[in-house]
Amino acid sequence: MTASDWLHERFEPAGSAIGFRITRKLDEVQSPFQKIEIYESTDWGNVMLIDGAMMVTTRDNFLYHEMMSHPALFTHPDPKQVVIIGGGDCGTLREVLRHPGVERAVQCDIDEQVTRMAEKYFPELCESNDDPRAEILFDDGIAYMANCAPGSLDVVIVDSTDPVGPAEGLFNKAFFESCFRALKDDGILVQQSESPLVLLDLIKAMRAEMGKAGFTSFQTLPFPQPCYPTGWWSCTLARKGQGFEFREADARARPFETLYYTAEIHKGAQSLPPFVAKALGD
Amino acid sequence: MTASDWLHERFEPAGSAIGFRITRKLDEVQSPFQKIEIYESTDWGNVMLIDGAMMVTTRDNFLYHEMMSHPALFTHPDPKQVVIIGGGDCGTLREVLRHPGVERAVQCDIDEQVTRMAEKYFPELCESNDDPRAEILFDDGIAYMANCAPGSLDVVIVDSTDPVGPAEGLFNKAFFESCFRALKDDGILVQQSESPLVLLDLIKAMRAEMGKAGFTSFQTLPFPQPCYPTGWWSCTLARKGQGFEFREADARARPFETLYYTAEIHKGAQSLPPFVAKALGD
Repeated sequence: MTASDWLHERFEPAGSAIGFRITRKLDEVQSPFQKIEIYESTDWGNVMLIDGAMMVTTRDNFLYHEMMSHPALFTHPDPKQVVIIGGGDCGTLREVLRHPGVERAVQCDIDEQVTRMAEKYFPELCESNDDPRAEILFDDGIAYMANCAPGSLDVVIVDSTDPVGPAEGLFNKAFFESCFRALKDDGILVQQSESPLVLLDLIKAMRAEMGKAGFTSFQTLPFPQPCYPTGWWSCTLARKGQGFEFREADARARPFETLYYTAEIHKGAQSLPPFVAKALGD
Repeated sequence: MTASDWLHERFEPAGSAIGFRITRKLDEVQSPFQKIEIYESTDWGNVMLIDGAMMVTTRDNFLYHEMMSHPALFTHPDPKQVVIIGGGDCGTLREVLRHPGVERAVQCDIDEQVTRMAEKYFPELCESNDDPRAEILFDDGIAYMANCAPGSLDVVIVDSTDPVGPAEGLFNKAFFESCFRALKDDGILVQQSESPLVLLDLIKAMRAEMGKAGFTSFQTLPFPQPCYPTGWWSCTLARKGQGFEFREADARARPFETLYYTAEIHKGAQSLPPFVAKALGD
Protein backbone atom coordinates (compact mmCIF):
# COMPACT_ATOMS: atom_id res chain seq x y z
CA MET A 1 0.00 0.00 0.00
CA THR A 2 1.06 3.56 -0.66
CA ALA A 3 0.30 6.75 1.21
CA SER A 4 -2.53 7.49 -1.19
CA ASP A 5 -4.59 4.38 -0.58
CA TRP A 6 -8.21 4.66 0.39
CA LEU A 7 -10.20 2.23 2.46
CA HIS A 8 -13.93 2.12 1.68
CA GLU A 9 -16.87 0.52 3.40
CA ARG A 10 -19.75 -0.06 1.05
CA PHE A 11 -22.96 -0.20 3.04
CA GLU A 12 -25.19 -2.29 0.82
CA PRO A 13 -28.54 -1.80 2.65
CA ALA A 14 -28.42 1.95 1.99
CA GLY A 15 -26.33 2.12 -1.18
CA SER A 16 -23.90 4.50 0.49
CA ALA A 17 -20.19 4.31 1.24
CA ILE A 18 -17.73 5.90 3.58
CA GLY A 19 -13.96 5.83 3.48
CA PHE A 20 -10.69 7.05 4.89
CA ARG A 21 -7.27 7.70 3.41
CA ILE A 22 -4.89 5.21 4.92
CA THR A 23 -1.15 4.82 5.11
CA ARG A 24 -0.88 1.13 6.07
CA LYS A 25 -2.50 -1.91 7.55
CA LEU A 26 -1.34 -2.38 11.13
CA ASP A 27 -2.90 -5.69 12.00
CA GLU A 28 -5.42 -8.33 11.07
CA VAL A 29 -6.84 -11.27 12.98
CA GLN A 30 -9.51 -13.79 12.15
CA SER A 31 -11.19 -14.58 15.47
CA PRO A 32 -13.64 -17.48 15.87
CA PHE A 33 -16.39 -14.91 15.25
CA GLN A 34 -15.20 -12.31 12.79
CA LYS A 35 -12.32 -10.70 10.93
CA ILE A 36 -10.80 -7.72 12.71
CA GLU A 37 -8.53 -5.32 10.81
CA ILE A 38 -6.64 -2.26 11.98
CA TYR A 39 -5.42 0.46 9.62
CA GLU A 40 -3.44 3.61 10.19
CA SER A 41 -5.08 6.62 8.52
CA THR A 42 -3.71 10.00 7.51
CA ASP A 43 -6.30 12.09 9.35
CA TRP A 44 -8.41 9.84 11.61
CA GLY A 45 -5.82 8.04 13.69
CA ASN A 46 -6.26 4.28 13.76
CA VAL A 47 -9.31 2.62 12.22
CA MET A 48 -10.82 -0.71 13.31
CA LEU A 49 -12.93 -2.74 10.91
CA ILE A 50 -14.95 -5.84 11.77
CA ASP A 51 -15.93 -7.96 8.78
CA GLY A 52 -15.29 -4.96 6.57
CA ALA A 53 -17.44 -2.52 8.55
CA MET A 54 -15.89 0.53 10.20
CA MET A 55 -16.18 0.23 13.96
CA VAL A 56 -13.99 2.88 15.54
CA THR A 57 -11.55 5.59 14.55
CA THR A 58 -9.28 7.36 17.02
CA ARG A 59 -10.65 10.71 15.93
CA ASP A 60 -14.42 10.35 15.97
CA ASN A 61 -15.28 7.52 18.41
CA PHE A 62 -16.06 9.98 21.20
CA LEU A 63 -19.33 10.89 19.51
CA TYR A 64 -20.68 7.35 19.64
CA HIS A 65 -19.29 6.37 23.03
CA GLU A 66 -20.56 9.50 24.76
CA MET A 67 -24.02 9.15 23.22
CA MET A 68 -24.28 5.43 24.01
CA SER A 69 -23.69 6.07 27.70
CA HIS A 70 -24.47 9.54 29.07
CA PRO A 71 -28.08 9.99 27.83
CA ALA A 72 -29.13 6.66 29.37
CA LEU A 73 -27.20 7.23 32.59
CA PHE A 74 -28.56 10.76 32.98
CA THR A 75 -32.09 9.49 32.35
CA HIS A 76 -32.02 6.67 34.88
CA PRO A 77 -32.69 8.13 38.38
CA ASP A 78 -29.65 6.53 40.04
CA PRO A 79 -27.66 4.10 37.89
CA LYS A 80 -25.47 1.76 39.94
CA GLN A 81 -25.47 -1.60 38.17
CA VAL A 82 -24.66 -1.38 34.46
CA VAL A 83 -24.14 -4.10 31.87
CA ILE A 84 -22.67 -3.48 28.43
CA ILE A 85 -23.36 -6.18 25.84
CA GLY A 86 -20.76 -5.98 23.08
CA GLY A 87 -18.63 -2.88 23.43
CA GLY A 88 -15.39 -4.85 23.18
CA ASP A 89 -13.37 -1.74 22.29
CA CYS A 90 -14.02 -0.61 25.90
CA GLY A 91 -14.89 2.98 24.92
CA THR A 92 -18.44 2.77 26.27
CA LEU A 93 -17.16 1.20 29.48
CA ARG A 94 -14.80 4.13 29.95
CA GLU A 95 -17.67 6.62 29.61
CA VAL A 96 -19.93 4.65 31.97
CA LEU A 97 -17.23 4.62 34.63
CA ARG A 98 -16.98 8.41 34.52
CA HIS A 99 -20.23 8.40 36.53
CA PRO A 100 -19.15 8.23 40.20
CA GLY A 101 -22.46 6.64 41.21
CA VAL A 102 -21.87 3.54 39.11
CA GLU A 103 -20.88 0.69 41.45
CA ARG A 104 -20.34 -2.05 38.88
CA ALA A 105 -20.06 -2.10 35.11
CA VAL A 106 -19.89 -5.46 33.37
CA GLN A 107 -18.75 -5.55 29.75
CA CYS A 108 -19.67 -8.79 28.01
CA ASP A 109 -18.37 -9.12 24.47
CA ILE A 110 -18.26 -12.47 22.73
CA ASP A 111 -14.95 -11.71 21.04
CA GLU A 112 -11.84 -11.29 23.19
CA GLN A 113 -9.83 -10.33 20.13
CA VAL A 114 -11.72 -7.04 19.80
CA THR A 115 -10.54 -6.01 23.25
CA ARG A 116 -6.99 -7.21 22.61
CA MET A 117 -6.87 -5.11 19.45
CA ALA A 118 -8.34 -2.11 21.29
CA GLU A 119 -5.72 -2.40 24.05
CA LYS A 120 -3.01 -2.27 21.43
CA TYR A 121 -4.34 0.28 18.93
CA PHE A 122 -6.85 2.33 20.95
CA PRO A 123 -5.24 2.32 24.42
CA GLU A 124 -7.06 5.52 25.40
CA LEU A 125 -10.39 3.63 25.16
CA CYS A 126 -9.09 1.02 27.59
CA GLU A 127 -7.76 3.38 30.23
CA SER A 128 -10.52 2.46 32.70
CA ASN A 129 -10.28 -1.31 32.22
CA ASP A 130 -8.46 -1.65 35.54
CA ASP A 131 -11.09 0.31 37.44
CA PRO A 132 -12.15 -1.93 40.37
CA ARG A 133 -15.78 -1.37 39.36
CA ALA A 134 -15.17 -2.85 35.89
CA GLU A 135 -15.67 -6.51 35.04
CA ILE A 136 -14.67 -7.56 31.54
CA LEU A 137 -16.11 -10.84 30.29
CA PHE A 138 -15.67 -12.59 26.98
CA ASP A 139 -18.85 -14.52 26.60
CA ASP A 140 -22.11 -14.79 24.69
CA GLY A 141 -24.12 -11.65 25.54
CA ILE A 142 -27.41 -13.40 24.77
CA ALA A 143 -26.69 -16.15 27.30
CA TYR A 144 -25.31 -13.63 29.79
CA MET A 145 -28.51 -11.60 29.75
CA ALA A 146 -30.68 -14.72 29.91
CA ASN A 147 -28.85 -15.80 33.08
CA CYS A 148 -28.84 -12.42 34.85
CA ALA A 149 -30.66 -12.32 38.17
CA PRO A 150 -34.13 -10.81 37.64
CA GLY A 151 -34.45 -7.16 38.65
CA SER A 152 -30.74 -6.80 39.26
CA LEU A 153 -29.71 -4.13 36.74
CA ASP A 154 -30.21 -0.40 36.32
CA VAL A 155 -28.94 0.09 32.78
CA VAL A 156 -28.24 -2.34 29.93
CA ILE A 157 -26.25 -0.91 27.02
CA VAL A 158 -26.24 -2.90 23.79
CA ASP A 159 -23.14 -1.69 21.97
CA SER A 160 -23.18 -4.14 19.10
CA THR A 161 -22.19 -4.43 15.47
CA ASP A 162 -24.86 -4.33 12.75
CA PRO A 163 -27.75 -6.81 13.06
CA VAL A 164 -26.10 -9.43 10.88
CA GLY A 165 -23.63 -12.15 11.90
CA PRO A 166 -22.75 -12.43 15.60
CA ALA A 167 -24.99 -9.49 16.60
CA GLU A 168 -28.16 -10.68 14.85
CA GLY A 169 -29.56 -12.20 18.06
CA LEU A 170 -29.30 -8.86 19.86
CA PHE A 171 -32.16 -7.31 17.92
CA ASN A 172 -35.10 -9.65 18.67
CA LYS A 173 -37.85 -10.26 21.23
CA ALA A 174 -36.10 -13.15 23.02
CA PHE A 175 -33.05 -11.04 23.82
CA PHE A 176 -35.13 -8.04 24.81
CA GLU A 177 -37.18 -10.27 27.15
CA SER A 178 -33.95 -11.20 28.94
CA CYS A 179 -33.07 -7.51 29.24
CA PHE A 180 -36.56 -6.69 30.50
CA ARG A 181 -36.37 -9.42 33.16
CA ALA A 182 -32.87 -8.44 34.30
CA LEU A 183 -33.72 -4.75 34.65
CA LYS A 184 -35.24 -3.28 37.78
CA ASP A 185 -38.62 -1.55 37.41
CA ASP A 186 -36.99 1.80 36.67
CA GLY A 187 -34.27 0.23 34.51
CA ILE A 188 -33.27 1.48 31.09
CA LEU A 189 -32.16 -0.40 28.00
CA VAL A 190 -30.19 1.52 25.38
CA GLN A 191 -29.14 0.10 22.06
CA GLN A 192 -27.24 1.43 19.07
CA SER A 193 -29.94 1.77 16.40
CA GLU A 194 -28.20 2.50 13.11
CA SER A 195 -28.80 5.46 10.77
CA PRO A 196 -31.96 7.51 11.37
CA LEU A 197 -31.86 8.67 7.77
CA VAL A 198 -31.82 5.40 5.90
CA LEU A 199 -32.60 2.68 8.44
CA LEU A 200 -35.84 3.94 9.92
CA ASP A 201 -37.46 0.58 9.19
CA LEU A 202 -34.83 -1.13 11.32
CA ILE A 203 -35.37 1.29 14.22
CA LYS A 204 -39.11 0.76 13.92
CA ALA A 205 -38.74 -3.03 13.89
CA MET A 206 -36.35 -2.92 16.84
CA ARG A 207 -38.76 -0.82 18.88
CA ALA A 208 -41.58 -3.22 17.97
CA GLU A 209 -39.55 -6.19 19.25
CA MET A 210 -38.71 -4.26 22.42
CA GLY A 211 -42.44 -3.59 22.82
CA LYS A 212 -43.29 -7.28 22.48
CA ALA A 213 -40.80 -7.94 25.28
CA GLY A 214 -42.69 -5.57 27.58
CA PHE A 215 -40.97 -2.20 27.16
CA THR A 216 -43.48 0.63 26.92
CA SER A 217 -41.50 3.84 26.33
CA PHE A 218 -38.98 4.50 23.59
CA GLN A 219 -36.71 7.38 22.76
CA THR A 220 -34.43 7.51 19.71
CA LEU A 221 -31.60 10.04 19.88
CA PRO A 222 -29.68 10.94 16.69
CA PHE A 223 -26.04 12.06 16.65
CA PRO A 224 -23.27 12.58 14.07
CA GLN A 225 -20.84 9.71 13.51
CA PRO A 226 -18.62 10.13 10.44
CA CYS A 227 -17.22 6.59 10.47
CA TYR A 228 -20.67 4.98 10.23
CA PRO A 229 -22.80 4.87 7.06
CA THR A 230 -24.42 8.22 6.18
CA GLY A 231 -22.46 9.91 9.00
CA TRP A 232 -25.60 10.10 11.09
CA TRP A 233 -26.35 7.50 13.73
CA SER A 234 -28.69 6.90 16.66
CA CYS A 235 -29.23 5.14 19.96
CA THR A 236 -32.64 4.06 21.21
CA LEU A 237 -33.64 4.03 24.87
CA ALA A 238 -36.42 1.78 26.19
CA ARG A 239 -37.95 1.47 29.63
CA LYS A 240 -40.78 -0.28 31.42
CA GLY A 241 -42.68 2.74 32.72
CA GLN A 242 -44.08 5.78 30.97
CA GLY A 243 -41.84 8.54 29.68
CA PHE A 244 -38.25 9.50 30.31
CA GLU A 245 -37.15 11.84 33.09
CA PHE A 246 -33.92 13.48 31.99
CA ARG A 247 -31.84 14.52 35.03
CA GLU A 248 -30.91 17.77 33.33
CA ALA A 249 -29.42 19.49 36.39
CA ASP A 250 -27.16 16.50 37.04
CA ALA A 251 -26.10 16.41 33.40
CA ARG A 252 -25.16 20.09 33.61
CA ALA A 253 -23.23 19.52 36.84
CA ARG A 254 -21.49 16.37 35.59
CA PRO A 255 -18.11 15.96 37.29
CA PHE A 256 -16.29 14.96 34.10
CA GLU A 257 -15.36 16.47 30.76
CA THR A 258 -17.01 15.55 27.48
CA LEU A 259 -16.22 16.46 23.90
CA TYR A 260 -19.71 16.12 22.43
CA TYR A 261 -22.27 15.40 25.14
CA THR A 262 -23.93 18.26 27.01
CA ALA A 263 -27.33 18.67 28.63
CA GLU A 264 -28.30 20.90 25.69
CA ILE A 265 -27.13 18.37 23.09
CA HIS A 266 -29.11 15.70 24.97
CA LYS A 267 -32.26 17.85 24.95
CA GLY A 268 -31.74 18.78 21.32
CA ALA A 269 -31.47 15.12 20.33
CA GLN A 270 -34.76 14.36 22.09
CA SER A 271 -36.56 16.48 19.52
CA LEU A 272 -36.64 14.39 16.36
CA PRO A 273 -36.80 15.90 12.89
CA PRO A 274 -40.35 15.62 11.48
CA PHE A 275 -39.44 12.99 8.88
CA VAL A 276 -37.97 10.73 11.59
CA ALA A 277 -40.78 11.33 14.11
CA LYS A 278 -43.35 10.59 11.44
CA ALA A 279 -41.71 7.33 10.40
CA LEU A 280 -41.39 6.19 14.01
CA GLY A 281 -44.91 7.27 14.93
CA ASP A 282 -43.59 9.45 17.79
CA MET B 1 -21.32 0.89 -15.98
CA THR B 2 -23.15 -1.88 -14.24
CA ALA B 3 -25.73 -1.82 -11.45
CA SER B 4 -23.01 -2.49 -8.91
CA ASP B 5 -20.88 0.57 -9.62
CA TRP B 6 -19.96 2.92 -6.85
CA LEU B 7 -19.23 6.61 -7.14
CA HIS B 8 -16.82 8.01 -4.57
CA GLU B 9 -15.81 11.51 -3.60
CA ARG B 10 -12.46 11.61 -1.92
CA PHE B 11 -12.23 14.69 0.25
CA GLU B 12 -8.51 15.31 0.38
CA PRO B 13 -8.43 18.03 3.09
CA ALA B 14 -9.91 15.61 5.65
CA GLY B 15 -8.74 12.26 4.30
CA SER B 16 -12.32 11.00 4.22
CA ALA B 17 -14.55 9.76 1.45
CA ILE B 18 -18.25 9.34 0.76
CA GLY B 19 -19.96 7.41 -1.97
CA PHE B 20 -23.18 6.14 -3.46
CA ARG B 21 -24.10 3.04 -5.42
CA ILE B 22 -25.09 4.16 -8.87
CA THR B 23 -26.86 2.61 -11.82
CA ARG B 24 -25.80 4.99 -14.60
CA LYS B 25 -24.52 8.39 -15.60
CA LEU B 26 -27.40 10.53 -16.78
CA ASP B 27 -25.60 13.60 -18.02
CA GLU B 28 -22.40 15.57 -18.08
CA VAL B 29 -21.60 19.11 -19.14
CA GLN B 30 -18.43 21.15 -18.99
CA SER B 31 -19.60 24.71 -18.38
CA PRO B 32 -17.23 27.69 -18.67
CA PHE B 33 -16.74 27.34 -14.90
CA GLN B 34 -16.87 23.69 -13.89
CA LYS B 35 -17.75 20.13 -14.80
CA ILE B 36 -21.27 19.11 -13.82
CA GLU B 37 -22.21 15.43 -13.72
CA ILE B 38 -25.51 13.74 -12.95
CA TYR B 39 -25.79 10.10 -11.86
CA GLU B 40 -28.74 7.91 -11.08
CA SER B 41 -28.27 6.05 -7.79
CA THR B 42 -29.93 2.95 -6.38
CA ASP B 43 -31.05 4.50 -3.09
CA TRP B 44 -30.49 8.26 -3.17
CA GLY B 45 -32.32 9.34 -6.31
CA ASN B 46 -30.25 11.49 -8.63
CA VAL B 47 -26.84 12.80 -7.60
CA MET B 48 -25.21 16.01 -8.89
CA LEU B 49 -21.44 16.42 -8.78
CA ILE B 50 -19.52 19.60 -9.53
CA ASP B 51 -15.84 19.09 -10.28
CA GLY B 52 -16.08 15.69 -8.62
CA ALA B 53 -17.67 16.94 -5.39
CA MET B 54 -21.14 15.76 -4.37
CA MET B 55 -23.54 18.69 -4.42
CA VAL B 56 -27.06 17.35 -4.14
CA THR B 57 -28.92 14.06 -3.95
CA THR B 58 -32.67 13.75 -4.35
CA ARG B 59 -32.91 12.00 -1.01
CA ASP B 60 -30.93 14.11 1.41
CA ASN B 61 -30.82 17.68 0.02
CA PHE B 62 -33.69 18.79 2.28
CA LEU B 63 -31.33 18.79 5.27
CA TYR B 64 -28.99 21.35 3.73
CA HIS B 65 -31.59 23.51 2.03
CA GLU B 66 -33.79 23.80 5.12
CA MET B 67 -30.83 24.64 7.36
CA MET B 68 -29.39 27.20 4.92
CA SER B 69 -32.64 29.16 4.91
CA HIS B 70 -34.97 28.77 7.91
CA PRO B 71 -32.56 29.48 10.80
CA ALA B 72 -31.47 32.78 9.19
CA LEU B 73 -35.00 33.78 8.19
CA PHE B 74 -36.40 32.96 11.64
CA THR B 75 -33.58 34.92 13.27
CA HIS B 76 -34.01 38.11 11.21
CA PRO B 77 -36.90 40.14 12.69
CA ASP B 78 -38.76 40.59 9.38
CA PRO B 79 -36.97 39.30 6.27
CA LYS B 80 -38.33 40.79 3.05
CA GLN B 81 -35.36 41.27 0.72
CA VAL B 82 -33.25 38.15 0.33
CA VAL B 83 -30.27 37.44 -1.93
CA ILE B 84 -28.83 33.98 -2.53
CA ILE B 85 -25.29 33.87 -3.89
CA GLY B 86 -24.70 30.55 -5.60
CA GLY B 87 -27.55 28.12 -4.94
CA GLY B 88 -27.96 27.30 -8.62
CA ASP B 89 -29.88 24.10 -7.88
CA CYS B 90 -32.69 26.38 -6.65
CA GLY B 91 -33.37 24.33 -3.50
CA THR B 92 -32.51 27.16 -1.12
CA LEU B 93 -34.63 29.55 -3.18
CA ARG B 94 -37.60 27.22 -2.81
CA GLU B 95 -37.21 27.17 1.00
CA VAL B 96 -36.80 30.97 1.21
CA LEU B 97 -40.00 31.48 -0.78
CA ARG B 98 -41.95 29.37 1.72
CA HIS B 99 -41.78 32.43 4.00
CA PRO B 100 -44.84 34.53 3.08
CA GLY B 101 -43.16 37.73 4.31
CA VAL B 102 -40.38 37.52 1.74
CA GLU B 103 -41.09 40.08 -0.97
CA ARG B 104 -38.15 39.41 -3.27
CA ALA B 105 -35.57 36.64 -3.46
CA VAL B 106 -32.73 37.02 -5.93
CA GLN B 107 -30.65 33.97 -6.77
CA CYS B 108 -27.33 34.85 -8.37
CA ASP B 109 -25.28 31.86 -9.50
CA ILE B 110 -22.40 32.28 -11.91
CA ASP B 111 -23.18 29.06 -13.73
CA GLU B 112 -26.44 28.80 -15.68
CA GLN B 113 -25.72 25.14 -16.40
CA VAL B 114 -26.23 24.20 -12.75
CA THR B 115 -29.77 25.51 -12.90
CA ARG B 116 -30.45 23.87 -16.27
CA MET B 117 -29.31 20.54 -14.84
CA ALA B 118 -31.41 21.05 -11.71
CA GLU B 119 -34.50 21.81 -13.80
CA LYS B 120 -34.03 18.54 -15.63
CA TYR B 121 -32.88 16.17 -12.86
CA PHE B 122 -34.12 17.82 -9.66
CA PRO B 123 -37.38 19.45 -10.84
CA GLU B 124 -38.80 19.44 -7.30
CA LEU B 125 -36.07 21.90 -6.25
CA CYS B 126 -37.11 24.26 -9.03
CA GLU B 127 -40.84 24.26 -8.35
CA SER B 128 -40.78 27.84 -7.05
CA ASN B 129 -38.68 29.27 -9.86
CA ASP B 130 -41.76 30.87 -11.43
CA ASP B 131 -42.83 32.53 -8.19
CA PRO B 132 -43.27 36.25 -9.05
CA ARG B 133 -41.05 37.10 -6.04
CA ALA B 134 -38.13 35.10 -7.48
CA GLU B 135 -35.44 36.60 -9.68
CA ILE B 136 -32.90 34.17 -11.11
CA LEU B 137 -29.66 35.68 -12.38
CA PHE B 138 -26.64 34.03 -13.89
CA ASP B 139 -23.84 36.34 -12.96
CA ASP B 140 -20.76 36.78 -10.82
CA GLY B 141 -21.95 36.81 -7.20
CA ILE B 142 -18.93 38.81 -6.07
CA ALA B 143 -19.71 41.60 -8.53
CA TYR B 144 -23.43 41.38 -7.77
CA MET B 145 -22.86 41.94 -4.05
CA ALA B 146 -20.34 44.72 -4.71
CA ASN B 147 -22.95 46.56 -6.78
CA CYS B 148 -25.91 46.09 -4.44
CA ALA B 149 -27.45 49.28 -3.11
CA PRO B 150 -26.14 49.90 0.44
CA GLY B 151 -28.54 48.95 3.21
CA SER B 152 -30.98 47.30 0.81
CA LEU B 153 -31.02 43.67 1.97
CA ASP B 154 -32.35 41.75 4.96
CA VAL B 155 -30.68 38.39 4.43
CA VAL B 156 -27.77 37.26 2.24
CA ILE B 157 -27.38 33.50 1.85
CA VAL B 158 -24.07 32.23 0.48
CA ASP B 159 -24.89 28.79 -0.88
CA SER B 160 -21.60 28.03 -2.54
CA THR B 161 -19.33 25.15 -3.43
CA ASP B 162 -16.15 24.53 -1.42
CA PRO B 163 -13.71 27.47 -1.11
CA VAL B 164 -11.65 26.42 -4.11
CA GLY B 165 -12.21 27.26 -7.77
CA PRO B 166 -15.14 29.55 -8.63
CA ALA B 167 -16.24 29.90 -4.98
CA GLU B 168 -12.85 30.88 -3.55
CA GLY B 169 -13.69 34.60 -3.64
CA LEU B 170 -16.78 34.04 -1.50
CA PHE B 171 -14.77 33.35 1.65
CA ASN B 172 -12.71 36.53 2.09
CA LYS B 173 -12.91 40.01 3.61
CA ALA B 174 -13.57 41.84 0.33
CA PHE B 175 -16.69 39.80 -0.39
CA PHE B 176 -17.90 40.02 3.20
CA GLU B 177 -17.45 43.83 3.07
CA SER B 178 -19.81 43.92 0.11
CA CYS B 179 -22.32 41.83 2.07
CA PHE B 180 -21.93 44.06 5.11
CA ARG B 181 -22.56 47.19 3.04
CA ALA B 182 -25.56 45.73 1.22
CA LEU B 183 -27.27 44.54 4.41
CA LYS B 184 -29.50 46.76 6.52
CA ASP B 185 -28.46 47.34 10.14
CA ASP B 186 -30.41 44.30 11.32
CA GLY B 187 -29.41 42.23 8.31
CA ILE B 188 -28.07 38.69 8.51
CA LEU B 189 -25.47 36.91 6.42
CA VAL B 190 -25.51 33.12 6.39
CA GLN B 191 -22.94 30.97 4.67
CA GLN B 192 -22.38 27.25 4.30
CA SER B 193 -19.35 26.58 6.46
CA GLU B 194 -18.21 23.01 5.78
CA SER B 195 -17.75 20.20 8.30
CA PRO B 196 -17.68 21.18 11.98
CA LEU B 197 -15.73 18.01 12.76
CA VAL B 198 -12.78 18.34 10.44
CA LEU B 199 -12.82 21.89 9.08
CA LEU B 200 -12.95 23.93 12.25
CA ASP B 201 -9.95 25.93 11.04
CA LEU B 202 -11.90 26.96 7.96
CA ILE B 203 -14.92 28.03 10.02
CA LYS B 204 -12.62 29.99 12.31
CA ALA B 205 -10.86 31.68 9.38
CA MET B 206 -14.20 32.49 7.73
CA ARG B 207 -15.52 34.08 10.91
CA ALA B 208 -12.30 36.06 11.24
CA GLU B 209 -12.71 37.43 7.70
CA MET B 210 -16.35 38.27 8.43
CA GLY B 211 -15.16 40.08 11.54
CA LYS B 212 -12.64 42.14 9.57
CA ALA B 213 -15.52 43.19 7.31
CA GLY B 214 -17.43 44.56 10.30
CA PHE B 215 -19.67 41.70 11.44
CA THR B 216 -19.70 41.36 15.22
CA SER B 217 -21.86 38.32 16.06
CA PHE B 218 -21.46 34.80 14.75
CA GLN B 219 -23.43 31.61 15.16
CA THR B 220 -22.43 28.27 13.65
CA LEU B 221 -25.20 25.68 13.42
CA PRO B 222 -24.31 22.02 12.71
CA PHE B 223 -26.61 19.59 10.90
CA PRO B 224 -26.38 16.13 9.32
CA GLN B 225 -25.72 15.95 5.58
CA PRO B 226 -24.82 12.46 4.31
CA CYS B 227 -23.75 13.56 0.83
CA TYR B 228 -21.08 15.94 2.16
CA PRO B 229 -17.73 14.86 3.62
CA THR B 230 -18.01 13.36 7.15
CA GLY B 231 -21.82 13.50 6.92
CA TRP B 232 -21.88 16.47 9.28
CA TRP B 233 -22.07 20.00 7.96
CA SER B 234 -22.73 23.54 9.16
CA CYS B 235 -23.93 27.00 8.29
CA THR B 236 -22.62 30.14 9.94
CA LEU B 237 -24.74 33.23 10.60
CA ALA B 238 -23.20 36.68 10.99
CA ARG B 239 -24.75 40.03 11.85
CA LYS B 240 -23.78 43.60 12.62
CA GLY B 241 -25.29 43.94 16.09
CA GLN B 242 -24.89 41.90 19.24
CA GLY B 243 -26.46 38.46 19.57
CA PHE B 244 -29.14 36.62 17.66
CA GLU B 245 -32.82 36.83 18.49
CA PHE B 246 -34.44 33.61 17.36
CA ARG B 247 -38.15 34.15 16.58
CA GLU B 248 -39.03 30.86 18.20
CA ALA B 249 -42.79 31.38 18.34
CA ASP B 250 -42.86 32.21 14.62
CA ALA B 251 -40.73 29.16 13.84
CA ARG B 252 -43.20 26.99 15.74
CA ALA B 253 -46.15 28.57 13.94
CA ARG B 254 -44.51 28.39 10.50
CA PRO B 255 -47.16 28.09 7.79
CA PHE B 256 -45.27 25.44 5.82
CA GLU B 257 -44.10 21.87 6.25
CA THR B 258 -40.51 20.88 6.80
CA LEU B 259 -38.80 17.51 6.91
CA TYR B 260 -35.88 18.41 9.17
CA TYR B 261 -36.21 21.96 10.48
CA THR B 262 -38.17 22.66 13.64
CA ALA B 263 -37.87 25.30 16.36
CA GLU B 264 -36.42 22.60 18.64
CA ILE B 265 -33.87 21.48 16.05
CA HIS B 266 -32.90 25.14 15.56
CA LYS B 267 -32.44 25.63 19.32
CA GLY B 268 -30.57 22.36 19.62
CA ALA B 269 -28.15 23.37 16.86
CA GLN B 270 -27.42 26.65 18.70
CA SER B 271 -25.78 24.68 21.47
CA LEU B 272 -22.43 23.57 20.11
CA PRO B 273 -20.64 20.45 21.32
CA PRO B 274 -17.77 21.40 23.65
CA PHE B 275 -15.03 20.44 21.17
CA VAL B 276 -16.55 22.75 18.52
CA ALA B 277 -17.27 25.60 20.92
CA LYS B 278 -13.74 25.43 22.26
CA ALA B 279 -12.15 25.50 18.80
CA LEU B 280 -14.31 28.47 17.75
CA GLY B 281 -13.80 30.33 21.01
CA ASP B 282 -17.58 30.56 21.55
